[in-house]
Amino acid sequence: MAEPSVVHSTFVLERSFPLPPERVFAAFSDPGKKRRWFAEGEHQNDIEEFSMEFRAGGEERLRYRMGETTPFPGVELTNEGRYHDIVPNRRIVMALTMHLGGRCISVALATMELLPTASGTDLLFTHQGAYFEGSGGPELRQQGWRVLFDSLERELAQAAGIGDGQSEH
Amino acid sequence: MAEPSVVHSTFVLERSFPLPPERVFAAFSDPGKKRRWFAEGEHQNDIEEFSMEFRAGGEERLRYRMGETTPFPGVELTNEGRYHDIVPNRRIVMALTMHLGGRCISVALATMELLPTASGTDLLFTHQGAYFEGSGGPELRQQGWRVLFDSLERELAQAAGIGDGQSEH
Repeated sequence: MAEPSVVHSTFVLERSFPLPPERVFAAFSDPGKKRRWFAEGEHQNDIEEFSMEFRAGGEERLRYRMGETTPFPGVELTNEGRYHDIVPNRRIVMALTMHLGGRCISVALATMELLPTASGTDLLFTHQGAYFEGSGGPELRQQGWRVLFDSLERELAQAAGIGDGQSEH
Repeated sequence: MAEPSVVHSTFVLERSFPLPPERVFAAFSDPGKKRRWFAEGEHQNDIEEFSMEFRAGGEERLRYRMGETTPFPGVELTNEGRYHDIVPNRRIVMALTMHLGGRCISVALATMELLPTASGTDLLFTHQGAYFEGSGGPELRQQGWRVLFDSLERELAQAAGIGDGQSEH
């Protein structure tokens, strides 16, 4: 038969934070906080739009132009999300769609679980993706989320007034 | 750390049909056809609502009461879908959410790929699921899709005016 045109792949990332689940959850539920680590982050992209409605059924939308140092300078990238399940301080499940230059390159289901530990909170992030033509594939997406969670660590370290002592394990 | 509250699981189902991709695709894109095999099927449930808007970004909604022979007779079950990527006669990617008695029990990313073969079309169905409390887990969902694709086979056999000669492999 013909070759499938979709690559399916699941990856899991874990981070530990020396903060209670409520503080970590707030970095996802508060639009101002999420804008800082998720939309602005370290990448020098030109944000044209960021909006989110944090409720089951609510939508999130981030649109920007790729920066000069990226493979596609000036090209429009859109990340759209829909919140499907929210359990306060415990989990968030979203469908995520990425468009590059107006073309859908991937769809994913992302689960963020917050697990209380003796020293704070473990974030367990499971990303179940479907990758289309021109997406760059799962490794690139995983790398993108690592960068985002580095940014989340900085956001939370700053909020807690502590150093950059978190670790990925 | 505490136990995760979500089970993630991916399964793949394949079916072969002695019909060109256009005919198989129509069973997904035509609301009348899809209602027959997807909403009505064999199960003796009481359909209260079925609607679909077949376009990227469009929504699908099936709501019914569980039948007398099911584990939850009379309980409302809602299947909501959102079309994220559609390539005519080739693939459909949807996010699917299931609510039982008003409570979200699972979210999934479902990819239907149609691959032309010498004798017709292979359907490659990839289901990437996240299962919550009370969902019954991935095996139950996989069994549900097998039943649905049996129903799709009947729909297509009837449409083609042929016998029940399809096989799952």
